[in-house]
Amino acid sequence: MNTVQLLSVARGEQPADRLLKNGKIVNVFSGEIEEASIALYDNVIAGVGDAYQAREEIDLDGSYVAPGLVDAHVHIESSLSIPSQFAAAVLPRGVTCVVTDPHEIANVVGTEGIRYMSQSSQGLPLSIMIMAPSCVPATHMETNGAHLDDEDLIPLLQDGTVFGLAEMMNYPGVVQGTSEVIAKLSAFQGRPLDGHAPGLRGKPLNAYAAAGIGSEHECTTVEEAAEKLARGFYILIREATNARNLHALLPLITPENSRRICFCTDDRIPGDLIDQGSIDYMVRAAILFGIDPITAFRMATLNSADWFGLHKHGAIAPGRYANFFTFDDLRCPIVRDVYAQGKLVAKDGTSLSDELAHAQKDAMIQVPQAIQQTVRINTQGVDLKIPIPHQGVSQQIENTSAVTQIAIRATIRVIGAIEDQLLTEERILPAKVVEGYAIADTERDILKMAVVERHTPKSAGTVNGVGLGFIQGFGLQRGAMASTVAHDHHNLVVIGADDDSMHRAIKQIVVMGGGVVVAEGDTILAELPLPVAGLMSDRPIEEVRVAYDQVRSVVHLLGSSLHDPLMAMSFMALEVIPKLKLTDKGLVDVEKFEIVDLFL
Amino acid sequence: MNTVQLLSVARGEQPADRLLKNGKIVNVFSGEIEEASIALYDNVIAGVGDAYQAREEIDLDGSYVAPGLVDAHVHIESSLSIPSQFAAAVLPRGVTCVVTDPHEIANVVGTEGIRYMSQSSQGLPLSIMIMAPSCVPATHMETNGAHLDDEDLIPLLQDGTVFGLAEMMNYPGVVQGTSEVIAKLSAFQGRPLDGHAPGLRGKPLNAYAAAGIGSEHECTTVEEAAEKLARGFYILIREATNARNLHALLPLITPENSRRICFCTDDRIPGDLIDQGSIDYMVRAAILFGIDPITAFRMATLNSADWFGLHKHGAIAPGRYANFFTFDDLRCPIVRDVYAQGKLVAKDGTSLSDELAHAQKDAMIQVPQAIQQTVRINTQGVDLKIPIPHQGVSQQIENTSAVTQIAIRATIRVIGAIEDQLLTEERILPAKVVEGYAIADTERDILKMAVVERHTPKSAGTVNGVGLGFIQGFGLQRGAMASTVAHDHHNLVVIGADDDSMHRAIKQIVVMGGGVVVAEGDTILAELPLPVAGLMSDRPIEEVRVAYDQVRSVVHLLGSSLHDPLMAMSFMALEVIPKLKLTDKGLVDVEKFEIVDLFL
Repeated sequence: MNTVQLLSVARGEQPADRLLKNGKIVNVFSGEIEEASIALYDNVIAGVGDAYQAREEIDLDGSYVAPGLVDAHVHIESSLSIPSQFAAAVLPRGVTCVVTDPHEIANVVGTEGIRYMSQSSQGLPLSIMIMAPSCVPATHMETNGAHLDDEDLIPLLQDGTVFGLAEMMNYPGVVQGTSEVIAKLSAFQGRPLDGHAPGLRGKPLNAYAAAGIGSEHECTTVEEAAEKLARGFYILIREATNARNLHALLPLITPENSRRICFCTDDRIPGDLIDQGSIDYMVRAAILFGIDPITAFRMATLNSADWFGLHKHGAIAPGRYANFFTFDDLRCPIVRDVYAQGKLVAKDGTSLSDELAHAQKDAMIQVPQAIQQTVRINTQGVDLKIPIPHQGVSQQIENTSAVTQIAIRATIRVIGAIEDQLLTEERILPAKVVEGYAIADTERDILKMAVVERHTPKSAGTVNGVGLGFIQGFGLQRGAMASTVAHDHHNLVVIGADDDSMHRAIKQIVVMGGGVVVAEGDTILAELPLPVAGLMSDRPIEEVRVAYDQVRSVVHLLGSSLHDPLMAMSFMALEVIPKLKLTDKGLVDVEKFEIVDLFL
Repeated sequence: MNTVQLLSVARGEQPADRLLKNGKIVNVFSGEIEEASIALYDNVIAGVGDAYQAREEIDLDGSYVAPGLVDAHVHIESSLSIPSQFAAAVLPRGVTCVVTDPHEIANVVGTEGIRYMSQSSQGLPLSIMIMAPSCVPATHMETNGAHLDDEDLIPLLQDGTVFGLAEMMNYPGVVQGTSEVIAKLSAFQGRPLDGHAPGLRGKPLNAYAAAGIGSEHECTTVEEAAEKLARGFYILIREATNARNLHALLPLITPENSRRICFCTDDRIPGDLIDQGSIDYMVRAAILFGIDPITAFRMATLNSADWFGLHKHGAIAPGRYANFFTFDDLRCPIVRDVYAQGKLVAKDGTSLSDELAHAQKDAMIQVPQAIQQTVRINTQGVDLKIPIPHQGVSQQIENTSAVTQIAIRATIRVIGAIEDQLLTEERILPAKVVEGYAIADTERDILKMAVVERHTPKSAGTVNGVGLGFIQGFGLQRGAMASTVAHDHHNLVVIGADDDSMHRAIKQIVVMGGGVVVAEGDTILAELPLPVAGLMSDRPIEEVRVAYDQVRSVVHLLGSSLHDPLMAMSFMALEVIPKLKLTDKGLVDVEKFEIVDLFL
């Protein structure tokens, strides 16, 4: 973009590239609908409001025009798609800028993964703004693929790969002021510091604010959000696939506080992006709820741009990127034509962009080999058997007088999964024991779960690090499902009714170089390869969506009644959300912040 | 400030330095009044809302507490006082942060002046945030003391002396995209770029926005301000001594657009600061007009902090500076106790601060000699006589047939000053000619005006650069007034009824090393020394105010009926505001942007 030329177009001395006439602009500055033309030069807006000459005129015929939507916090990896494919899904939704935290890929391949996300975002019509992952690894109670401290992140900031610090999930570390956390916050001083502190209130919340954290997207109640907003946090209302806070938080919004509220999606699976949408869905839902439409648009545009200092985004104004979309009804904005960086990139829900097609075509070529070969499991070295420890057994026998059909008894900590929640319970239950081994018990919906370490290189004969446990709530009656998407360390997680099915699923994932598999006995029932860091596919997102749906359907056929058992499984290994989780190092009692024994 | 200690206080694990209890906090985030305590650690707020232990407790007894006010744009030099004395005037008004453009001193001594303003602001309880002067000199049609281009400004940005680019007055250069202007804007990309474009509308305004300028403080009508706001400019409503836009612009403010509006004072003389106040006056006036009080406070606090990215200012919240003040009545907030950087610095309008007293005591010692010796005029070389040019006379005689009592006739361009405006008229009038020289004619209120170049070093015998002309509207019947405050070049400007008085005033100013003088014949009637760059006094601002008032009274006694003839005179040499102005290089037709002849 040539500034001298831009100014010449703005002055009206040379024709604009395009003129969009007869539009009703959602002016997020004045809070009004403004009937005006928009003159474009290259990828920016040169002028608004005056008649300009242009090489191409487009008559908007009285349509509304809103600024391109901004997703204030999203993990692109959760779309199971590489950036160009993710862009193909959200651009038709009017989303032209996303602030992303690539902490999934960073946990697998470190800064190389962050740079890959940056490089593969270059040239896309979607502006992908990267925040530095703040908590890689999430804790010491897991094995992941990288450890990023302040000295790893500073070069990314200096070379412009990242522009702020992403969700500081180690909120206990912030509140306590640990040196590692303080070093990271200091490195990003003056930059946006995103928060992540579910349920934090009162004095610890004050400390979290005092440390400089400026936003929060984990609020689940109006009371919590109101307190955080009053302490200075921007509230990023989230409507993810697995964490839907929008309707709970809509009553928070008032004319007086709305400027401090933004919208974000955090994690959305392909099907949700394609069927329901992204930030556009949140705008519609907010308006339908009764929020003033311009206020709703502001939360989806200018407010996020303000919080992140993205002054080329968030509004239709001279000098800002020519990012906007048309729609017909202010009461329910259905995105029609989407312009990004000055070009028409989508129409009626379908992506059109040449740049996008080009990027997609080249996508897999761009992926460094190191990012394509990340599932380092010696399948011979994976032992899923869980022998009953002698001490546990004998104690158990002494402590009970009940008579059962199981000859040897043991009591175990079982992860209690709860539908649509990342929180789990710790359930103390008797194990099903056969021939000295604790095994799954489908009658009580107790399934075996394993987390197989996949990051460190192995030689032949190496015994793999495997965390073993049991879980309730997934409902499988037979077979097993496995995935290399397992927040945040993304080891291989597998849940099954029998060890054979689990082993088969693991082997197939190793063959695919990562992904999702459902197996029963020796048979692969469904699979979705995710060769990019074991997290993302390079295929068109519609294909990914079909494969994902098939996998999910098969899991349902195997007995699970969870809405999305795959996504649910991916959070059962996340040792920062209470109460009981499983990593490759074993069961984690999150509240105690320590590894605990499976057997009591 | 120790972050680890701060967090410990925030968590409630160690006592706060101070706890302000039973306050009604103006919460600019939620837009509500919040009954809560404020816990301080060192110079910041550690916690809000919870009961804390503290070494000192202060019962606010139900008083309101508002965030320290932010002046979004002020030239400290206009207070005729050095920073520590300016601070003494505005802190008792609840102003705890000012964004300042030191372009007056920069025009005299360049970057050394900017650094002096920065250094003499260190350690003050008032946060003085410096923007880099963008237009030094204002044009090529003057002689000033420095030329600052992008390469001069970049080191100031890099070492933290400045944080953004101050009012880009060369708006024609921006709109046209001249290389010098583009270089400066590029150097400050991503930083706040303040605007200054009186009356700019339509396509040129689009160009001004497209170049990246983000604010504007020169609006005089609601229509102009509404257009600028809609194009993305923050509107800084100004209430200066000489340019009072507040009441004209209050009708602009709506609940929908108020977030994009800030308050600033630009230029205020000591008397206005002391009698009327600063930003606090604007808040009161806005509330009295009918603006919601919390909205008024936001325009005076958070909005400015947002625009400038001053995230430690503008609100009462953990991690922000402990800057706030108490008051009793939300309908008319009269500032009572002022806390800045955690300390009580003023009470009931009186400054208390030890730091301030210390800074004031050391003030003159800190002023480098180069900044104290800036009036380089060889008084022997100043010739104020205006001979009638032969060509002009003869043409005049040919062109007229009227008979008058003046034997030789000449027609001159006279600057037409208008009360309370910086704009002037060009008035074509017959000169009063005596013995071949054009002289002042008090009967028609035509006074002689001279601008004497004072920046370049002179040797004995050097003939000084002097611009000569005539001006109407000042009303002096006798004597002369002179000043080294003459925007923006700050040469010596003098207006008088006779040459002797003018010469006497010039000589006295040279003796004082700068300042303001009124003389009649051989007698000095009043004077105010301004030894710091010829712009500022190091004396207590109350003394400056008294001296200034005396000078002004004397000018009134000499016949001027202008409210403030001294301030008015200081803008008669500013060759960027139409129509006709006088610099040391001569008469400037601002619209033609060229030097024009005095004689037609």
